[in-house]
Amino acid sequence: MVTLAYDGTKFAGFQSQPNQRTVQSVLETAVNKMSTAASFVHIFGSGRTDAGVHALGQVIHFDLENDIPEEGIVNGLNSLLPLDVEILTAKRVATTFHARFTTHGKRYLYRVSLGRFVNPFKRFYTGQYKYPLKVDLIKAALPDVIGTHDFSSFVASGSQAKSHIRTIYDATVKEDQTTGEVVFEFYGNGFLYNQVRIMVATLLEIGNEKRPVHDFLRLYEVKDRNECRATAPASGLYLKKVYYK
Amino acid sequence: MVTLAYDGTKFAGFQSQPNQRTVQSVLETAVNKMSTAASFVHIFGSGRTDAGVHALGQVIHFDLENDIPEEGIVNGLNSLLPLDVEILTAKRVATTFHARFTTHGKRYLYRVSLGRFVNPFKRFYTGQYKYPLKVDLIKAALPDVIGTHDFSSFVASGSQAKSHIRTIYDATVKEDQTTGEVVFEFYGNGFLYNQVRIMVATLLEIGNEKRPVHDFLRLYEVKDRNECRATAPASGLYLKKVYYK
Repeated sequence: MVTLAYDGTKFAGFQSQPNQRTVQSVLETAVNKMSTAASFVHIFGSGRTDAGVHALGQVIHFDLENDIPEEGIVNGLNSLLPLDVEILTAKRVATTFHARFTTHGKRYLYRVSLGRFVNPFKRFYTGQYKYPLKVDLIKAALPDVIGTHDFSSFVASGSQAKSHIRTIYDATVKEDQTTGEVVFEFYGNGFLYNQVRIMVATLLEIGNEKRPVHDFLRLYEVKDRNECRATAPASGLYLKKVYYK
Repeated sequence: MVTLAYDGTKFAGFQSQPNQRTVQSVLETAVNKMSTAASFVHIFGSGRTDAGVHALGQVIHFDLENDIPEEGIVNGLNSLLPLDVEILTAKRVATTFHARFTTHGKRYLYRVSLGRFVNPFKRFYTGQYKYPLKVDLIKAALPDVIGTHDFSSFVASGSQAKSHIRTIYDATVKEDQTTGEVVFEFYGNGFLYNQVRIMVATLLEIGNEKRPVHDFLRLYEVKDRNECRATAPASGLYLKKVYYK
């Protein structure tokens, strides 16, 4: 079990794709340089992240035959990886562990920059919202987000999930006075394809008074993505933590 | 007089060069789209910044014949410029103003990340220092930096300055607990080519006990760049403010 951070700006997402630079492919290149096994070592992530989406605490696992100590894996991989990926920790785990299938929850963070003009240093690291925003309205809407709901209105086409029912344990929004950003956090048992980015875009519309405060309750009922067309940009989204038992 | 911020990562520095993307060239492209004059409008900056060096408050001037209000210049240029440049303010000034020749001082900031591994989100925005650092030793050295000195030991080859004597009004170092960074600031009447980056590298060597605390006093005397071979990376340097009377 390895935790890692990455700047998603220059990756075509986490998952390997032909002729694309992905997080998985650079990890597999590095791990296989370290491996003494004859066969290719595959990397398993806790889940995909899209192109431009960042991670502060993505989790992966792989099977390594070598007897390298945990610290040696951190140091070794960091010396082999490009600078937009950083290995944070490595821990030997039981063979029953699986980065994706034994997940118990995930926490995402979304950073929003306000104002008409884009701060050059934040263009790849926040989503920009150019319209007036009443954060108090978003705060009033967040209790509706928490709980078990059918998120069919908040799933992008292309999702292969069998069920759109997910549980959100916690959802917060904070105004950061130092940075001038509005920062969301969502902690849940799992998230659908683009769910966080669609929820953020919808919450921003509530904060902009384009929607009534309790519109989420209606959106759970209608189960229609056409009612939530906006998707907040990938640049603001961070996979912050993956939870295991 | 226009103040602007830019992310220097994808620029080959401020000054125009053939076949290179520079801050000056993207500014001149934008300003000339706005201009109704028959002749090309040139941009004059307060000074150059190298490839990869950032600006939080660079100053430029240019002569525009149009009668566009100040706010219109900010909005217009921002809509014409790429996202790694942001116009902050515009102010109509007397024809005697010159962004470079009427400068009274400059303030630079240098951000250092500590630790063996590079944080993916800081690789273009800080300089990395991998060795142990005693910030107290740097604090003890900074009074030697302040004042009027011959900085010949701290100037890169390629400088066309006639004199290497400069005055530094203030020099500080702070440990930022939130970010884990060590942040330098230098405020002076002017700086030689690469002077700040060479001074930072030398101060880091003092903090690492490679040099005695008061080595600056010796370095002013010897006037020899070979005594200060290291140059801190461009990625950590920010032109923070340019001063005019």
